[in-house]
Amino acid sequence: MARGRKRTPGEPAGKPDRPPSVSPLSLHRISFYLRCLKTLEDEGVQRISSQELARRFHLSAPQIRKDLAQLGEFGIRGVGYETSHLRQHLSSLLGLDRLHRMIIVGMGNLGSALARYFGFNSGAFLVVAGVDRDPGKVGLRVGDFTIRHTREVADVVRESGAEIGVLAVPADVAQEAHDELAAAGIRGVINFSPSRIRPAPGVQLKDVDLRIHLEELAYFLETRRRSAPESDGAAG
Amino acid sequence: MARGRKRTPGEPAGKPDRPPSVSPLSLHRISFYLRCLKTLEDEGVQRISSQELARRFHLSAPQIRKDLAQLGEFGIRGVGYETSHLRQHLSSLLGLDRLHRMIIVGMGNLGSALARYFGFNSGAFLVVAGVDRDPGKVGLRVGDFTIRHTREVADVVRESGAEIGVLAVPADVAQEAHDELAAAGIRGVINFSPSRIRPAPGVQLKDVDLRIHLEELAYFLETRRRSAPESDGAAG
Repeated sequence: MARGRKRTPGEPAGKPDRPPSVSPLSLHRISFYLRCLKTLEDEGVQRISSQELARRFHLSAPQIRKDLAQLGEFGIRGVGYETSHLRQHLSSLLGLDRLHRMIIVGMGNLGSALARYFGFNSGAFLVVAGVDRDPGKVGLRVGDFTIRHTREVADVVRESGAEIGVLAVPADVAQEAHDELAAAGIRGVINFSPSRIRPAPGVQLKDVDLRIHLEELAYFLETRRRSAPESDGAAG
Repeated sequence: MARGRKRTPGEPAGKPDRPPSVSPLSLHRISFYLRCLKTLEDEGVQRISSQELARRFHLSAPQIRKDLAQLGEFGIRGVGYETSHLRQHLSSLLGLDRLHRMIIVGMGNLGSALARYFGFNSGAFLVVAGVDRDPGKVGLRVGDFTIRHTREVADVVRESGAEIGVLAVPADVAQEAHDELAAAGIRGVINFSPSRIRPAPGVQLKDVDLRIHLEELAYFLETRRRSAPESDGAAG
């Protein structure tokens, strides 16, 4: 794994062969850095310093250096990071250099939307199957697969090679759907349903709360509302 | 705004009357803290230290203290934070103590799913309107509103009082849809379409990339794959 890259003296070496333990929030940052690096690569930027990266994308330079150092990446003093190398390293750490097959449970509006969304946009992820308990949906064609009945989920997982399950079912059946996926051998589940579920042993569960995006936007609207000249000092 | 709360000596006072400038990533953390606090309130926990908060939700205690201090919140030494007060303060900062009306542009699978998702789940946000350019969808009832034609978007925004626009349209019409919302007076836009658009002056734009959730999950699967006994040392 030696790449002939310099490390800042005194800092420990990373362990690129095994992904280090990182918190969900650090991981969110790493995904974000990856997007920044892709943008830079598209623009032809070959090297970038942590300061410049921070300035361009409204980040913190010390935080960037700390996060990347934890992953075994150290910028060269006065030069910075090699954009392409760093992007490839982060992609590899996130497992994005191989294909992840996904099955969607619940092919209603959300499931159908996610099948199209994930199917069209990403080289590392592919929706290969979808199941629903509504007989009216079974047999319908969506992209490259045909919707099967939820009761056949174990067969569908085995035949499709799916390793990630996407829950797009109503809240009251989310736990049951998760348990069926786990029993079928799925080890990673994303839960889009608005309910908290208990993951089975050995299953990595990620709850997605889309309202968090609304809250971030609301904050900016609130900031503007409070700092608008007409309301300054008017409210108590 | 004095609440009779103690500050750690030497630390600057916050400015609760005007939300401080925070980065998108800090904001993401604040939304996350808010969810943690809601969970604690539901459990009847009245006070919590940054250490305990960090331990319970896999966070960093110094980061929590730093983030909250920036918002003018300082825990009492040896006691911690008051759960309910802190939750209310963060809610207020995010503007979640008032209702945000939303309009969805594009009432296909994703738009319909979002209308149900946001409509059913949150006190601070309400979907009040939806438009689509497909005449077959115009006139259909969704929750509490009837789908109108995209060409009437300015009227729909005015009549519904919407302040946030949700883009759930195909990539090739996302910019146009955004521009129409901006012209109609919308000042906050969430873009779910897989395209980068240029926000109009004065419009706060939030791009939502659902793949980030897949990437976080992929990382955990990758970690397990690499640390599994059967693959240890087998790969180069």
